[in-house]
Amino acid sequence: MSFVKEVSKWILSGVNGVIQSIDDKEIEKIVEVILEAREYKILLLGTGRSGFVGRAFALRLMHLGFNVYVSGETITPALAPEDLVLAISGSGTTTTVVAQAEVSKAVGSKVVAVTSYQDSPLANMADEVIVVKGRTKIDQDFDYERRQIAGEYDNAPLGTMFEISVMVFLDSVIAYLMQKLGVTEIDLRKRHANAE
Amino acid sequence: MSFVKEVSKWILSGVNGVIQSIDDKEIEKIVEVILEAREYKILLLGTGRSGFVGRAFALRLMHLGFNVYVSGETITPALAPEDLVLAISGSGTTTTVVAQAEVSKAVGSKVVAVTSYQDSPLANMADEVIVVKGRTKIDQDFDYERRQIAGEYDNAPLGTMFEISVMVFLDSVIAYLMQKLGVTEIDLRKRHANAE
Amino acid sequence: MSFVKEVSKWILSGVNGVIQSIDDKEIEKIVEVILEAREYKILLLGTGRSGFVGRAFALRLMHLGFNVYVSGETITPALAPEDLVLAISGSGTTTTVVAQAEVSKAVGSKVVAVTSYQDSPLANMADEVIVVKGRTKIDQDFDYERRQIAGEYDNAPLGTMFEISVMVFLDSVIAYLMQKLGVTEIDLRKRHANAE
Amino acid sequence: MSFVKEVSKWILSGVNGVIQSIDDKEIEKIVEVILEAREYKILLLGTGRSGFVGRAFALRLMHLGFNVYVSGETITPALAPEDLVLAISGSGTTTTVVAQAEVSKAVGSKVVAVTSYQDSPLANMADEVIVVKGRTKIDQDFDYERRQIAGEYDNAPLGTMFEISVMVFLDSVIAYLMQKLGVTEIDLRKRHANAE
Repeated sequence: MSFVKEVSKWILSGVNGVIQSIDDKEIEKIVEVILEAREYKILLLGTGRSGFVGRAFALRLMHLGFNVYVSGETITPALAPEDLVLAISGSGTTTTVVAQAEVSKAVGSKVVAVTSYQDSPLANMADEVIVVKGRTKIDQDFDYERRQIAGEYDNAPLGTMFEISVMVFLDSVIAYLMQKLGVTEIDLRKRHANAE
Repeated sequence: MSFVKEVSKWILSGVNGVIQSIDDKEIEKIVEVILEAREYKILLLGTGRSGFVGRAFALRLMHLGFNVYVSGETITPALAPEDLVLAISGSGTTTTVVAQAEVSKAVGSKVVAVTSYQDSPLANMADEVIVVKGRTKIDQDFDYERRQIAGEYDNAPLGTMFEISVMVFLDSVIAYLMQKLGVTEIDLRKRHANAE
Repeated sequence: MSFVKEVSKWILSGVNGVIQSIDDKEIEKIVEVILEAREYKILLLGTGRSGFVGRAFALRLMHLGFNVYVSGETITPALAPEDLVLAISGSGTTTTVVAQAEVSKAVGSKVVAVTSYQDSPLANMADEVIVVKGRTKIDQDFDYERRQIAGEYDNAPLGTMFEISVMVFLDSVIAYLMQKLGVTEIDLRKRHANAE
Repeated sequence: MSFVKEVSKWILSGVNGVIQSIDDKEIEKIVEVILEAREYKILLLGTGRSGFVGRAFALRLMHLGFNVYVSGETITPALAPEDLVLAISGSGTTTTVVAQAEVSKAVGSKVVAVTSYQDSPLANMADEVIVVKGRTKIDQDFDYERRQIAGEYDNAPLGTMFEISVMVFLDSVIAYLMQKLGVTEIDLRKRHANAE
């Protein structure tokens, strides 16, 4: 097997472990909260690769008929108390995400954090927290040297494991939402952009 | 196991199948072409979720020291013949991606296509093609009804399987590039944005 | 007066000339077409600086309560025949803008072109055309050498005059729409993003 | 004259007043600071319409050969102490802009603020401040009622006057930089994107 395929296999196995370790009650809770936001607005927060994963989820929520927005894009409307904010940050410390989540809380909107760290600033202010492991914080990691020697990080550097895990997890949440809403792929297709 | 976790497992298994079916020679070729572009520029093309996956890869290439750009963003410089264009489109027919790939070819740049369809307009004009299966084209699929009845698509609708497969594959290419360049996670961290 | 202020004065005077030369009937027509799209969707097309000017207009349309989208961003829904597409391109030849306008026409949506060239590919396919002069196409300009010697272009290079003219013109259209809709600044403020 | 043309004339006259009131020494200082950053990196900060104006300036700086980045886009590298940060915010209070400017200061980078308010949080932390008037802050304005009755704001609501003024001012700075660097429009054209 080529090295690239070996790494893929290793990443996929790691991602499976990360997702299977997510709390089942947290999953039910986030799905419930999203369904409740159906009449209102959903705003996605995230920077860098977490932001791209958030955008990929936002796109599918739009295909499902949700009123969804992405921070940093042109069209970002005023939040109201009944709106939902989904903030993705592996470390839970990203400056702008925490700052925007704080403003959202002040407005009265519900904030759901997707992060690797239960005790991070983002998780601490959130109404609901989905812990998705996998974000490696080099500086703080106890066994950093050992892992580094093993070269473990280099096959999934920085937030790679977290970001892929969140993408697969959120796409699975989409499948669950489709089931709950009685929506099929054909319905999604109707809302898919036709002029891109 | 919760339904969401079951779907995740099913997606990950599908993604593994898709990646293991990629041609090994194509993988070596794309890595070689990327390494050759180290002194020049790399431009990523892609819209929607394929675009987000492309951006996630672009970010890691930047962390590795490559001179990389993403179409549709503010800073997109003029292409030169020695530059590399990486175009991601599951269907291989996305209007703007094909249009931009055509301009790139006219400039003389090398175009690598990442697509599910070997015989698509994008693949036909590309210098190199990485076939990553998984993109379902409802309208054309022979066994559409059978699959629809089985509800198979609804757990990974539209391009989901393609997009996750490309993300995991390209992150594995990053691991390979790190090995080839003798670069570690710590080197990447130095180029990671500090003001986001 | 400092050189920078002198150039500003010169640009503003040029912009005024450009805007005063716009056809009054075209202005009434575009305002009418935008008001008709109030119940439907408006999609902005444009790349580079024309794209930024388009986004600035889109933001104000959203503040006015329109259902507006920007091509290239995450949330871009499927177009329907009753939707409106506003395409901005000084040269009227920008590859992706023309490609997307073509798809929009095929869907049946109305296309309004904002361009310097009445006989450009974009203008030719559009339902309505607002001619905003100012885009300099070096290669084609008859009196290129004379102007170059005078250094005229260098104070407003490439599309600068076109882009600023379009921005000021579209902001004036916003004032007109506010008047027609009986909307005040305070109403706009309510829809202004609060978590940015 | 049509109402739209009248408003344009009124906006342009207001913009001229705003720009002529900018401090000449501040203009010289900002040009000097930008020229010093030629060997390093320049990062643009701004959200909403201020962000679009910043992007338009960033594009021209790139055409001039500067190494320029825009916050919130894919490719945003690590800042170093010798880098320059240009932060645009009419009110000088935009949450994410202030947060990012703070991080930039902590890294040791030079921060230039473009704002209407000399005593705003952004201006207070900046190394250099360009005061560009025009941003109306409804809630705080002393003579709010009088102006509102006159309908003055409604022809240039929210930050319109500030944003257009900054756009014209920064484009005039580009003309000055071209003169100082001995660069012509033809040189710019060479760096203009060819595959957009």
